[in-house]
Amino acid sequence: MLTRIDHIGIACFDLDKTVEFYRATYGFEVFHTEVNEEQGVREAMLRINGTDDGGASYLQLLEPVREDSTVAKWLAKNGEGVHHIAFGTADVDGEAEAIRGKGVRVLYDEPRTGSMGSRITFLHPKDCHGVLTELVTSAPSRH
Amino acid sequence: MLTRIDHIGIACFDLDKTVEFYRATYGFEVFHTEVNEEQGVREAMLRINGTDDGGASYLQLLEPVREDSTVAKWLAKNGEGVHHIAFGTADVDGEAEAIRGKGVRVLYDEPRTGSMGSRITFLHPKDCHGVLTELVTSAPSRH
Repeated sequence: MLTRIDHIGIACFDLDKTVEFYRATYGFEVFHTEVNEEQGVREAMLRINGTDDGGASYLQLLEPVREDSTVAKWLAKNGEGVHHIAFGTADVDGEAEAIRGKGVRVLYDEPRTGSMGSRITFLHPKDCHGVLTELVTSAPSRH
Repeated sequence: MLTRIDHIGIACFDLDKTVEFYRATYGFEVFHTEVNEEQGVREAMLRINGTDDGGASYLQLLEPVREDSTVAKWLAKNGEGVHHIAFGTADVDGEAEAIRGKGVRVLYDEPRTGSMGSRITFLHPKDCHGVLTELVTSAPSRH
């Protein structure tokens, strides 16, 4: 079961400037930053609200750290904007398997490491009406 | 103050098929449907989770009902995908005025009517790092 909007992933050219835009315009503060070498991104998580499944919803601001990352290629084609959306679940493995069984392409054979120690996978946007869709199970201690 | 991710607006060519995709793939059910003549869209709201400000987060699926609507033009250019994101606030008028004062273009002089009797306005995507951003104050009784 998918129980929350976990985050909205937003691709940007300059993470520091984009973080500053969200702080100055809306008052949103950085909750966490990290570099995900596997995904090829530097990211900032801005926590927006708590959710009734015990989790939270974030904006995830993403800047590519290498030119061959998927986010770098996406930015070169599309410019800045919403890159993906993510739903939270207690069981990313089970959800991914069930969704694969419905004929939707799941991009990873096994979930990989996402923000803040989460486990994540992605669904092919062409199978999801144009929306790159992530499934996330948070690390136990992080909201 | 913006206190939640209110919704993610997703543009689609066929609302019924897209609703069925979200139901069959994830189990998300339709919470509300309406036609917004002013915006030129037929829409379905799928409620995903409650939020700790007393509101909720939705997916808003949008199908244009006329060719000159902004969503129709957006779909013709971009294809299906995430059209906008929306933050919830108790005071859309005050937030819009404050954000306008920071030099971000607000698209309406006064908030207009959005989903489920809400009051909404939009911020220009070119002033928001490529993200068409909506501000929403829900009608008092609707979550």
